[in-house]
Parts: sequence; C-alpha cells; structure tokens
Amino acid sequence: MLTLMAMFSVGKVAILGTGLLGASLARALKSRHLVEIVSGWSRSAATREKCAQLHGVFDCICETPLDAVNDADIVVMCVPTLYIPDLSGKIAFKLKKNAVLTDVGSVKYGICMECEKNMSGTPASFIGSHPMAGSEKIGVDFSRADLFDGRPCFVTPVESTSGNSLELVKSMWEAVGMRVYTVPPDIHDFIVAHVSHLPHLLAGTLCVNTAKFECEDLKKYVGPGFKDTTRVASGSPEMWDSIIFDNRVEILKALRDYLKDLIGLISSIENYDKADVARRLQAAKIYRDSIK
Amino acid sequence: MLTLMAMFSVGKVAILGTGLLGASLARALKSRHLVEIVSGWSRSAATREKCAQLHGVFDCICETPLDAVNDADIVVMCVPTLYIPDLSGKIAFKLKKNAVLTDVGSVKYGICMECEKNMSGTPASFIGSHPMAGSEKIGVDFSRADLFDGRPCFVTPVESTSGNSLELVKSMWEAVGMRVYTVPPDIHDFIVAHVSHLPHLLAGTLCVNTAKFECEDLKKYVGPGFKDTTRVASGSPEMWDSIIFDNRVEILKALRDYLKDLIGLISSIENYDKADVARRLQAAKIYRDSIK
Repeated sequence: MLTLMAMFSVGKVAILGTGLLGASLARALKSRHLVEIVSGWSRSAATREKCAQLHGVFDCICETPLDAVNDADIVVMCVPTLYIPDLSGKIAFKLKKNAVLTDVGSVKYGICMECEKNMSGTPASFIGSHPMAGSEKIGVDFSRADLFDGRPCFVTPVESTSGNSLELVKSMWEAVGMRVYTVPPDIHDFIVAHVSHLPHLLAGTLCVNTAKFECEDLKKYVGPGFKDTTRVASGSPEMWDSIIFDNRVEILKALRDYLKDLIGLISSIENYDKADVARRLQAAKIYRDSIK
Repeated sequence: MLTLMAMFSVGKVAILGTGLLGASLARALKSRHLVEIVSGWSRSAATREKCAQLHGVFDCICETPLDAVNDADIVVMCVPTLYIPDLSGKIAFKLKKNAVLTDVGSVKYGICMECEKNMSGTPASFIGSHPMAGSEKIGVDFSRADLFDGRPCFVTPVESTSGNSLELVKSMWEAVGMRVYTVPPDIHDFIVAHVSHLPHLLAGTLCVNTAKFECEDLKKYVGPGFKDTTRVASGSPEMWDSIIFDNRVEILKALRDYLKDLIGLISSIENYDKADVARRLQAAKIYRDSIK
C-alpha cells in the first residue's frame, strides 16, 4: 500500500459533482495525504454548503466548474452520466497542459467518444473511469473515505489518451484502494452488460413473473435458492433505469443472446431432448464451479 | 418439540431405498425414539450391507421390499422418482389394514396419480410427500439424523387419502423437525416449478450464456451480484435432469411465461419505453423487498 501511495502524488485534483462518489473520493485522497489541494463543485447550493462544512475534505468549494478545474492536474467528473459529455465540453479549454480529465460513469463507450471529441485541440487529455463502488445510500451525507477499498475499477483509455495520463489515473484509483483493470470503452460496456446488467434484468424479470402468481402465496415456500437468484433485484430502480438506457446497445445484445439460449432450453425440454438438457446443466455447473 | 414428538408414535416404519434421504429418515426416527421398528430395503447388496452395519439405525435390513413392508404402519418409498410407481404396485397388496404409503419424490402429480391407482382395492392408502432436504453428497454414507431439521416438507393428499393417514404422515415429518405444508399434488408441482425449478434453469442458462464469452475473460470481473444470481447452477446435473423431465409440464409453463416477460422487457428497451422499464424495475424491487 505504501508503494502504491508513494507512486501517486499530485498537486491538485478537481472534483465536479460532490455526491456519494465525488465526496468519498475527496475524503479518500485527503485522508491518505495523496494530494495537496482538492477543489470541488456542485450544481446544488445546498450540497456546496454541506461540502464547505466538511472538515479537511475540500480545500475549496467553487460556484462554477471553470473555477474548480483551474490549475488542476486531474479533473474527475462525478455528475450523472447524462451530464458528463456537456460538462467536458464546458471545461475543456480551461484545463492546463498535461492535465487529465476522467469521469465515473457506469457505462463508457458513448461518454468516451463524446469527451474525446470535446478534448481535441486542447493541451489536456481524457480517459474514462468506472470505479465499481457505491451504495444504496447516495449523496454527500453518506460519503466515506473507505468507499473504494478493495473494489474493482475500470479505466478505459481512448485513442488520444497518453501513456502518462493512463498511468496517473490508474495510480489514483489504486492509491484509494481499488483493483484497476484497463480495457477499451466498448469492451467495458460488453463486460458490465454480461456480469452485472444481464443478471440484474433476469433477476428482476423473475420477480415480476413470480409476483403475478402471488394469489398462490408462493412467497411462503421460497428458499435460499430463489432468494440468492433474485437478491440483486432490490437495487435502486432509478439508478438501474439510467444504466439500462446508457448501455442499451450492449444490454440488448446480451439479452437477445440469453433469449436464444433460453428458447433452446425450452425447445429441448419440449422435445424430450434429454442429452441436450443434460449438456446444458453440465456446462452450467462446470462454469459456475470455476468461479470462486 | 416434545409435544410434536409425543403426537407421533407408531410401531413400524418401512423405508424402501436407503440412500441419503431413506437412511437419514431412519436415523432421525430412531435417534428420537419415535418408532419401535425401522425396517429397510435397498436394491443394492452393498448398500444393504452398509445399512446392516449402522449401529441402532435399522432394526432389520431385508432382501426384498415385500419383506420390509410386512406389518409396517408407514411405508416410505425413498427410491428415485422413476421407480416409485412400479414399487408401489409391487407392494400394494402386502400392506396391512390402515397402513399409509408415502414417498419422497420431488415432483408429485404423476407419482400421486399412479400410486393412488395402484393402491385402489387395498386396505391401505397413499399420500405423497416431498421433504425438501438433501445435499450434494448422496448415499447412505452421508446420512444424518438432523438432515430434516427446520426444512420445509410438502404433503400432497390424493382423493382417497384418509384424514388419519394425512395426520400420521404430517406428524412423522414434523417429528423429525420439518415445517409441513399440505397442498394438492398439482399445486405442489406448480409451486416448486416457480420457486425452485425456474430459478435453477435461469441461473444455469446465464452460466451457459456467459461461458460462451470466456475468451473475454469475464470471470475476472464477476462480483457478488453475478455470484448470487448463479449460485444454484452448481447443483447436481443428474438430479436436475430428472427433476426437469418429471415436472416437465409445469416447468414448461413457467419457462414460457417467463419468456413472455423477458421478451416484453427487451421490446420496451428496444422501443425506449422508459415508463415500462421503470415499472418493471419498481415491481421487481417491491416484490423482492417483501421476501424476508
């Protein structure tokens, strides 16, 4: 840990959007003495007020993003994904030479393409980030310095991302405790569609399907199998709604692909194709057993 | 517990098939002093030999099912579901007056209809049972007296089941520690299709689907969500293969119904129908949150 922390040391980090993720990043950076100055900006005056009152977290809270990014080595956009491309356009020409701009959006391809375009012609460069940390409880009030500890983080370089920018952003996430994976933006979206978004939608659909039969009081008979299979369906509908439409293309591919497998299984059961059903059950067990 | 044990007291229980479930039932009955004599039969000479050597579990191990059921008050068929109807036919006319025949098959409608037919004209009666206990480790070697503790058990009376037979079998499962639910055989099959079989097949299909993309090394990025959603896919393929074809009709209904919901979700995402997607996510969360 000391080695990692020693590797990351910059003068100023600007955090645009000081909700759960942004304020937690400020706390993590300052509590570990990784950076001299952390500046912050929030659209909401109430949030700016709250941030200004946190002790030893933000060195300055600014009224505009342009003020916050002034002279920053790293700028992290922690606003909702919808607003990230616009925000990058607003601040692009205010970034200093060799500054690195990144974000924390949970979907990467669209954001990365827009932000790269907005950065062209500036002396700074962009790289996407997706720190997979969070909580049901959102907002600055729930921010914590250990939010990122031991969690995975994707960084997604674009064509114009320099090697130095990549290393700087990687080492920042590592310094706050994350395991960092570097993948292209489109591969990121494919990965999360499969390991996170698809399971969520299947579990949710299983709940929707089962709820239809509640006249039979199925709930009474539910055991650990059903509970585990559907646990993720308790996630925040608002957050998931936004993720689904942000990663719509990859999610649709994953869903259609799953649908094909499900239809294949149904038709094998319909046709008494015991060999095919056995092959599927066996393949599923082998794959699941291979995951620790 | 003492009350329940006091309610169940019979002279002889015969256990046909002395694998994990049969031998565990023998242990549970004898260790709690619920019955004077437990007789057992297994098709396999090696298993019979093992059972005979267990201390204080079986009072007699017989070479034929006809010998084992002689003078028994309750006969429990613990053989694989495929063999249950035939076995009931073989022993039907050997059962004594007011004896109760039951089984432990995980699917009930077909078994109950066949067994009821085989019992007609005999002085005994039939009732289905499905004790939901078990383990990945099968066979007499893994049998334990506490296998049934705190687990749910369905009993499924048929038209000819007498009230006394129902109470006797219910009290036996309760006396070995189970929570007993009484439902008609077809409702049982509908319930387990939804709370157990459908989640298993969806989780298995998710594993089959994800395994196709292993060239991308998705496994590395898997978090607690994917792990929980797919955990049940590690179950024994042999056991599940048999369950699927035994409960084929109800499973196909449940799968087709799920398929409809999944196609509905896909088309709402395709058509940017945000209101419908939000409604589904919300309904899923409400249902899942209602399960403790």
